Amino acid sequence: MSSAPLDELIASLGDQMVVTDPDILAGYRHDRANDPDAGTPMALIRPVTTADVQVVVRWCAAHGIPVITRGAGTSLSGGATAVDGAVMLSTEKMRNLTIDTATRTAVSQPGLLNAEVKAAAAAHGLWYPPDPSSFEICSIGGNVATNAGGLCCVKYGVTTDYVLGLEVVLADGRAIRIGGKQLKDSAGLSLTKLFVGSEGLLGIVTEVTLRLLPPQASACTVVGTFASVHHASEAVLAITAKIRPAMLEFMDSVSINAVEDMLKMGLDREAGALLVAQSDAPGPAGIAEVELIEKAFSGCGATEVFATSDPAEGEAFTAARRAAIPAVERLGSLLLEDVGVPLPALPELIDGVEAIAAQNKVMISVIAHAGDGNTHPLIVFDPADADESARAQTAFGQVMDLAIGLGGTITGEHGVGRLKKGWLPDQLGPDVMELTARIKAALDPEGLLNPGVLL
Amino acid sequence: MSSAPLDELIASLGDQMVVTDPDILAGYRHDRANDPDAGTPMALIRPVTTADVQVVVRWCAAHGIPVITRGAGTSLSGGATAVDGAVMLSTEKMRNLTIDTATRTAVSQPGLLNAEVKAAAAAHGLWYPPDPSSFEICSIGGNVATNAGGLCCVKYGVTTDYVLGLEVVLADGRAIRIGGKQLKDSAGLSLTKLFVGSEGLLGIVTEVTLRLLPPQASACTVVGTFASVHHASEAVLAITAKIRPAMLEFMDSVSINAVEDMLKMGLDREAGALLVAQSDAPGPAGIAEVELIEKAFSGCGATEVFATSDPAEGEAFTAARRAAIPAVERLGSLLLEDVGVPLPALPELIDGVEAIAAQNKVMISVIAHAGDGNTHPLIVFDPADADESARAQTAFGQVMDLAIGLGGTITGEHGVGRLKKGWLPDQLGPDVMELTARIKAALDPEGLLNPGVLL
Repeated sequence: MSSAPLDELIASLGDQMVVTDPDILAGYRHDRANDPDAGTPMALIRPVTTADVQVVVRWCAAHGIPVITRGAGTSLSGGATAVDGAVMLSTEKMRNLTIDTATRTAVSQPGLLNAEVKAAAAAHGLWYPPDPSSFEICSIGGNVATNAGGLCCVKYGVTTDYVLGLEVVLADGRAIRIGGKQLKDSAGLSLTKLFVGSEGLLGIVTEVTLRLLPPQASACTVVGTFASVHHASEAVLAITAKIRPAMLEFMDSVSINAVEDMLKMGLDREAGALLVAQSDAPGPAGIAEVELIEKAFSGCGATEVFATSDPAEGEAFTAARRAAIPAVERLGSLLLEDVGVPLPALPELIDGVEAIAAQNKVMISVIAHAGDGNTHPLIVFDPADADESARAQTAFGQVMDLAIGLGGTITGEHGVGRLKKGWLPDQLGPDVMELTARIKAALDPEGLLNPGVLL
Repeated sequence: MSSAPLDELIASLGDQMVVTDPDILAGYRHDRANDPDAGTPMALIRPVTTADVQVVVRWCAAHGIPVITRGAGTSLSGGATAVDGAVMLSTEKMRNLTIDTATRTAVSQPGLLNAEVKAAAAAHGLWYPPDPSSFEICSIGGNVATNAGGLCCVKYGVTTDYVLGLEVVLADGRAIRIGGKQLKDSAGLSLTKLFVGSEGLLGIVTEVTLRLLPPQASACTVVGTFASVHHASEAVLAITAKIRPAMLEFMDSVSINAVEDMLKMGLDREAGALLVAQSDAPGPAGIAEVELIEKAFSGCGATEVFATSDPAEGEAFTAARRAAIPAVERLGSLLLEDVGVPLPALPELIDGVEAIAAQNKVMISVIAHAGDGNTHPLIVFDPADADESARAQTAFGQVMDLAIGLGGTITGEHGVGRLKKGWLPDQLGPDVMELTARIKAALDPEGLLNPGVLL
């Protein structure tokens, strides 16, 4: 790689924005998937404005240099892993955010954290619902790129349901605006929806217009303790067959114990599984929902059922669930799954994961956004143990095969990234893969945007 | 057109499925946009299965014959208008529907009416929310093609929010399945969302998997009578700034009187505008919402405010609003608008439409899904009066220019079709139009699917 063209870019953007210091670059090679095969970027660029992004993309297009767009680097499937010789475009300095109370929208650059958008909305008495467990450390741009979900999505939907408009820099450097603050829009193809979840393959999102809601009503929390994961998954179906809870989260015994080790909050270490459900329906409707949840828990063999309308108590259990990934991560390296199935297949999925763990002699902890059938089997392994690492990799693939076999998906909310692309054709089939490639080629003919992801 | 290839198609499909009788064909030339320039199809084909559709599309591809896909023919923007020499593919015989209570989904062929899907879901204690005013006569396939909205969308979202999966026959005759019964899915590009609202340009939807909800709670209805449209539009903003009502509909004096002429239900003929709002929040939350709506009506100068928790009374007002288009249609031919704006611009849009009517000396009746800023100015004219017809056409364009100028859209829920495509570039701009054309070319390189729509 000649450095001459990079000088050209530094001349355009200034040397503050273009980083080539190898020590700093090293910190941008990996995302949270910790791919050992991560490459080394030729430069890190931290644009501030859409115009900066256009300069970068035009320069990359002129010189045939790939661009990896990175938000907060929390991808669990390698969506923001560096590629040798590519430009790493970090959106971390793109932090403008305005809340428009008249239209109840947030207009955000991609570098804001999800929690910052939530907080800014809340300061105006409004609510941005999507709440990935990583909401305090993940960026809104990354949420858009992966169509991120979270805990309240079972009732309130995922990121795409809140994206009203986008500004996108295309592969040739043009910036387009699609959608806007209007709540309904059938004019033209659904391009806004196409860019959401496109994992940086079709363009670089430089601004997002998000729909905000009136604040969520205060929720009641019901916690159920079960002797086995199977009983807990049956309880999930008993609830989702009747109501749409505001939250319905699942933890198995490994994650319960790992969280208890970390947080020491008094969780039952003997439990086989824990369900944390919430209802935010107001008044008598909420009371009826809580009763239905309690009854479903008891009816499916819960050993203990605990309900509280105290928000602090409820938040403690939600925080415990959110802490599960970092807590289990203390037990070893993780291969983090994100498989989802149609709800009736949830017990079979959870039982199947248990069998895969036994068969491969690896520890798999299952946590789940159970109410929408989206599970996170966490495969724990010691990377220094080559044999265990290989067995973990085998289990990783078998879990995806299982989900596909049950009519489900290899990823409910994290995206395919680089880690799961080998399984994508098994889920989508050759015709849908070919269609995907055609759209990619139409929008990024040179293949410079986030190469190695999805395709 | 040689008839030899058509014989080939009749040999494959049988002569029941392929219609060439000119009297029958005449009935399939127009949709509800009544385009005087509608063409005459070479044949009408009424497939039953996906395989039938594949045969038709492959035959059309082989002979370079365009295909217009038609649901129930209720398009108000010419999305299903015939083109000379094209095949008209009607989905009216594709009527399989299954309700899966375990996953709370409906799997429907495109030919079912929206009302039939709603009724089948209701028979299982479930609810399919999207409710175009035409729900009793429009097809679910057409709803998917236009991303149709309706009255409850202000709280419950539009068609795309309920489409979990699709089967689509592509331009080359291959059938693909995308999405499914899983509630969350981030695997691959958001192709399901891309096909929703694509107006028959990218493929032919042969099956749709729809998310169903638990039944809607019973709603309270609040009706406000206003001296002017401006006061009513201010009341809309006072409500939407605070809550998300389950319905917030608007009628002006022309539509009030037209409906009263037709239904004789005792509407106030002196009213300048009527708002019909609903809250379906249960218990005290619902009471608080109703009070807020009443207060907003009174605070914005309502001359009368009437609230009822009687479902039949509420439905009478909803039915009155739904009857507005057929009622106003009795006054003359209609050019039916569907413009939407960000909510704060609603009063300016409604005032501007009044000015356009005065300036062009045409009658324009405004009805609206006011709660999401989506209005239907109905331009009334006598097609036998060439001068008035020309003035109506001028007004039609000016209303779209006005909406675009206010940062809005030329269509909130009806689609662009053939009638509005002249204005689409003004809304989207050349870069988005070019992007649209690239996606169209990638999926339908020969341009045989619904030519003349959008592009």
